[in-house]
Amino acid sequence: MPLSTDQQAEIDQARGGAQPTLRPISPALEEILFQALPVLDHGFVRVVDYMGDDAAVVQAARVSYGRGTKKVSEDRGLINYLMRHRHTTPFEMCEIKYHVKLPIFVARQWIRHRTANVNEYSARYSILDNEYYVPKPEHLAAQSTANRQGRDQVLSGKEAERVFDLLKKDAELVYEHYMEMLNEGETGEPLDPERSGLARELARMNLSLAFYTQWYWKTNLHNLMQFLSLRADAHAQYEIRVYADVMLDTLKRWCPISYDAFMEYRMGGAHLSKTGLAAIKRLIAGEKVDQKSSGLNPREWRELMAVLGLG
Amino acid sequence: MPLSTDQQAEIDQARGGAQPTLRPISPALEEILFQALPVLDHGFVRVVDYMGDDAAVVQAARVSYGRGTKKVSEDRGLINYLMRHRHTTPFEMCEIKYHVKLPIFVARQWIRHRTANVNEYSARYSILDNEYYVPKPEHLAAQSTANRQGRDQVLSGKEAERVFDLLKKDAELVYEHYMEMLNEGETGEPLDPERSGLARELARMNLSLAFYTQWYWKTNLHNLMQFLSLRADAHAQYEIRVYADVMLDTLKRWCPISYDAFMEYRMGGAHLSKTGLAAIKRLIAGEKVDQKSSGLNPREWRELMAVLGLG
Amino acid sequence: MPLSTDQQAEIDQARGGAQPTLRPISPALEEILFQALPVLDHGFVRVVDYMGDDAAVVQAARVSYGRGTKKVSEDRGLINYLMRHRHTTPFEMCEIKYHVKLPIFVARQWIRHRTANVNEYSARYSILDNEYYVPKPEHLAAQSTANRQGRDQVLSGKEAERVFDLLKKDAELVYEHYMEMLNEGETGEPLDPERSGLARELARMNLSLAFYTQWYWKTNLHNLMQFLSLRADAHAQYEIRVYADVMLDTLKRWCPISYDAFMEYRMGGAHLSKTGLAAIKRLIAGEKVDQKSSGLNPREWRELMAVLGLG
Amino acid sequence: MPLSTDQQAEIDQARGGAQPTLRPISPALEEILFQALPVLDHGFVRVVDYMGDDAAVVQAARVSYGRGTKKVSEDRGLINYLMRHRHTTPFEMCEIKYHVKLPIFVARQWIRHRTANVNEYSARYSILDNEYYVPKPEHLAAQSTANRQGRDQVLSGKEAERVFDLLKKDAELVYEHYMEMLNEGETGEPLDPERSGLARELARMNLSLAFYTQWYWKTNLHNLMQFLSLRADAHAQYEIRVYADVMLDTLKRWCPISYDAFMEYRMGGAHLSKTGLAAIKRLIAGEKVDQKSSGLNPREWRELMAVLGLG
Repeated sequence: MPLSTDQQAEIDQARGGAQPTLRPISPALEEILFQALPVLDHGFVRVVDYMGDDAAVVQAARVSYGRGTKKVSEDRGLINYLMRHRHTTPFEMCEIKYHVKLPIFVARQWIRHRTANVNEYSARYSILDNEYYVPKPEHLAAQSTANRQGRDQVLSGKEAERVFDLLKKDAELVYEHYMEMLNEGETGEPLDPERSGLARELARMNLSLAFYTQWYWKTNLHNLMQFLSLRADAHAQYEIRVYADVMLDTLKRWCPISYDAFMEYRMGGAHLSKTGLAAIKRLIAGEKVDQKSSGLNPREWRELMAVLGLG
Repeated sequence: MPLSTDQQAEIDQARGGAQPTLRPISPALEEILFQALPVLDHGFVRVVDYMGDDAAVVQAARVSYGRGTKKVSEDRGLINYLMRHRHTTPFEMCEIKYHVKLPIFVARQWIRHRTANVNEYSARYSILDNEYYVPKPEHLAAQSTANRQGRDQVLSGKEAERVFDLLKKDAELVYEHYMEMLNEGETGEPLDPERSGLARELARMNLSLAFYTQWYWKTNLHNLMQFLSLRADAHAQYEIRVYADVMLDTLKRWCPISYDAFMEYRMGGAHLSKTGLAAIKRLIAGEKVDQKSSGLNPREWRELMAVLGLG
Repeated sequence: MPLSTDQQAEIDQARGGAQPTLRPISPALEEILFQALPVLDHGFVRVVDYMGDDAAVVQAARVSYGRGTKKVSEDRGLINYLMRHRHTTPFEMCEIKYHVKLPIFVARQWIRHRTANVNEYSARYSILDNEYYVPKPEHLAAQSTANRQGRDQVLSGKEAERVFDLLKKDAELVYEHYMEMLNEGETGEPLDPERSGLARELARMNLSLAFYTQWYWKTNLHNLMQFLSLRADAHAQYEIRVYADVMLDTLKRWCPISYDAFMEYRMGGAHLSKTGLAAIKRLIAGEKVDQKSSGLNPREWRELMAVLGLG
Repeated sequence: MPLSTDQQAEIDQARGGAQPTLRPISPALEEILFQALPVLDHGFVRVVDYMGDDAAVVQAARVSYGRGTKKVSEDRGLINYLMRHRHTTPFEMCEIKYHVKLPIFVARQWIRHRTANVNEYSARYSILDNEYYVPKPEHLAAQSTANRQGRDQVLSGKEAERVFDLLKKDAELVYEHYMEMLNEGETGEPLDPERSGLARELARMNLSLAFYTQWYWKTNLHNLMQFLSLRADAHAQYEIRVYADVMLDTLKRWCPISYDAFMEYRMGGAHLSKTGLAAIKRLIAGEKVDQKSSGLNPREWRELMAVLGLG
């Protein structure tokens, strides 16, 4: 369970007190506001605040005085148009803030998205909890032989057992030594009153990248979609993709029209190269085209065939 | 009057419907939400949305599960500490969105602040109104002779009259010609049904930098304070400073504790150079220090004396 | 002619003195370094500095110790791969700096690209030259009736004459009044020794958006391509597109392999929506598809047919 | 030794071939270009490219056609003025690119500076080397009791021995298991030809934050100084400060006038609060001021006394 009783109580209390506001609200997002949506074995995603909704995108695109909404159908048409033609600035007018708990190796990928605001739990200042990620058996994948940064089939039998054993034992060991170096007992008293304890900012380096950290992460709707288009994609590492998947659900609750446009024009769409487009024109004209005659290299040809659901 | 009856009606309607939210609210800011706060002769600043409050800064700094607030006095202590030590990231967790109407030459200074989101009224797409800035007599300043980018005393007499005359007549003239080139009558019908009218994206270039534009402008609390520290400063051009001054009031309503810290540690403070600091140490020790013996150049010395209220 | 004799002499002098460097150089770009490439009637683009080349993209992608180059063919393959899969960070490792002279209304579009560094000539501090943009007859386009932000056929006859007349006369007039308000004669002496002259920061607002400004503008290769993909596009306003076209040539000189990849995968390619892709699959399968049965709206259908060179 | 023979040979080769360029060069930086400047036990900083010099700052501030330099003394005066008045944009016109090898826990602090370009060695794609950080005995500091994120005196005796033992043994152990899970022998062959080996993207999470990673990191002169002002500061963790110190030397070689201005106006200067400034005014006037009468809280008072070299 990712949350302690105290933490859950804090969340419940925050969910207790609705207050009136003149700002636009997103009812479906209010329903899950502050709640911890579980991800992986100890992680979560919590929406802690948001600003704007679909109508705010429309309002900014029109630079209007009021809410900007005409009819829902016109709003949908405008949002589709903006998404299709990559008029991204109106989508920057909505903002969302998450509290995320995630393994450090996932955090290291995530932080590469620079146009966001971040406050991370500080292991210089505080002591990290004994929580680390261990994949479920069905995610314990072998190295792909075809793709240097990909996964292949799932490990099994003795190899799987040995890997689980190593991951768990090493994590337990380095955490035990982390606490020993800090001279911290489980209840906060020193293990040995004679010792000083190593500085937190040094001791933390004994922990592995499997340990969980947490942060507040805030971004605008445009950058959120950019993040999701890369991290909810099949090429993303599974352990970050599951976070993106949960966030995709929060997007659907928050701005359902923008979500639909995003799924239609970005997630469900495809980008073609000049040569790929030429090949498609020939295919539509009824010509026979194969990899060689297409001018594409073998890998690009396979990618094109996959996009077209052929071969 | 900056607003038409229709525009005011849209605003009144938006102010009509409060709805419940679980998010933090800022009551003093809700009071003025959507209202046009007048600036210059035709401009305004309107807060159209916001996210977070002082407690949200605290919450992010602590990466907490609930609202993050302990006691108000502790929150104030933490916010002061963050401001003093330039821990800027927690202030990035609050966001505010303005609708601003402003002369184009002011907009050109303003847009240099890049870490903000902007949607501007498009003169490629729409026709600009006949509204332009003319300074009040008390702001019609002469060129400073001491400071190449500063102002001196106010113009008067015939020179002032002539300047007013030129500013107004030229603005009227270029607008009249703008409409003529567009082939637009006042009520939207063509002036001459035989003519095509010049493309809007070209005709606009006949308008001067005194004409008003408008935009939605959104930024976070940290970047807002950065903007205000430069634009509410005495060195800023008067015509942008009056916008910053109004926004400073909205900051006070929105996040009063952060506002106090900002005034104490940034606006009211001073930055000393290494040599300036050495001079102060000598002054405190009771030594006589003058410009030459200080090691500062004459301009720096004057600046230091001004900071210390001396000379 | 965009340059004065003095300015050309400064450029010639700068081109005089080659010095040895260990850094990568781009020979074809060195050939035109500092030279003013003319754009519009008084504008130009000058490359004033650059950092990195195609090999620097490869070097960063490989985090290598040396130049990163294996064979040119392998470098090309890697750069194509990076471009195709939107691995954008290695392209951020090259940087280019331009000096650009451009009409203010073009500068206002350009500045919306925020991830760049800019120093603009200050009309608070200095006096602007009497240079303004007047379109050539073949670019004096009528407002499009189909597209609210587009152009249609070229104006002709009396309407064209009248527009030229207005554009020129108004520009001359506002500049004359600008100088009068400043109390500036052509050779720098005051027009009237009794007058103070209006502050530069105020007088400038009488100038129109057709006047030329200039700036230093620096960005990285990734953001340059992002800029070019939007501004060298057929939907961009002609007056900014001509700048982008010249910069596209400088890109070709600077990083020819990246340029090829950019033309193949971005400029020459196309993005399909989910529904558009489904329509293409059916077309390839030999089915009859029309707008209605495609599920696309009329505008999207036209856009798709245009991409496919059909209809 | 941080570099292998092959790596050193690559660097030597790159340093072999100077070529002529018209761009500004920085001779003192060319002297050390590409060379690995050692930091910590296995890390380094290498300058791999740069763009611009002090004169380029001046050139951008003046938006000039040539090199922008008048006399060195005038350039210095202008650069000092820009630094003093926080006119930051001209400093953004110079760019520098580093190759850095650093422990992961240092990389995690460093990456928080968002306005930079980064390409990191990918442990999804490649296998990390067996290199991890172990502090020297003089840096094995105890946790500070006064400052939750600070260090105190150095650990000694048995406690120090035990900490060294744990840090080394745990690092060796987790690396051995990392290789075992990958099924990688030291020379690249599989340890066990029957096994698949765990995916690299998963196995890496067993490594600790003490392991070294490396990246290309590029930023502009303004953001470099911002980074250095925070990371070369006494409050920064020692392990990142030593990187900043080495980079400070590269700054001095690259742009010596900007370096001097940075040391005078930022590193060697001090920021005072409104209340602190009032206390200084009273001290200069010869009044007795103590913490209580100053209006500062005890911590701020101590900070002020430290700045003034008093108490």
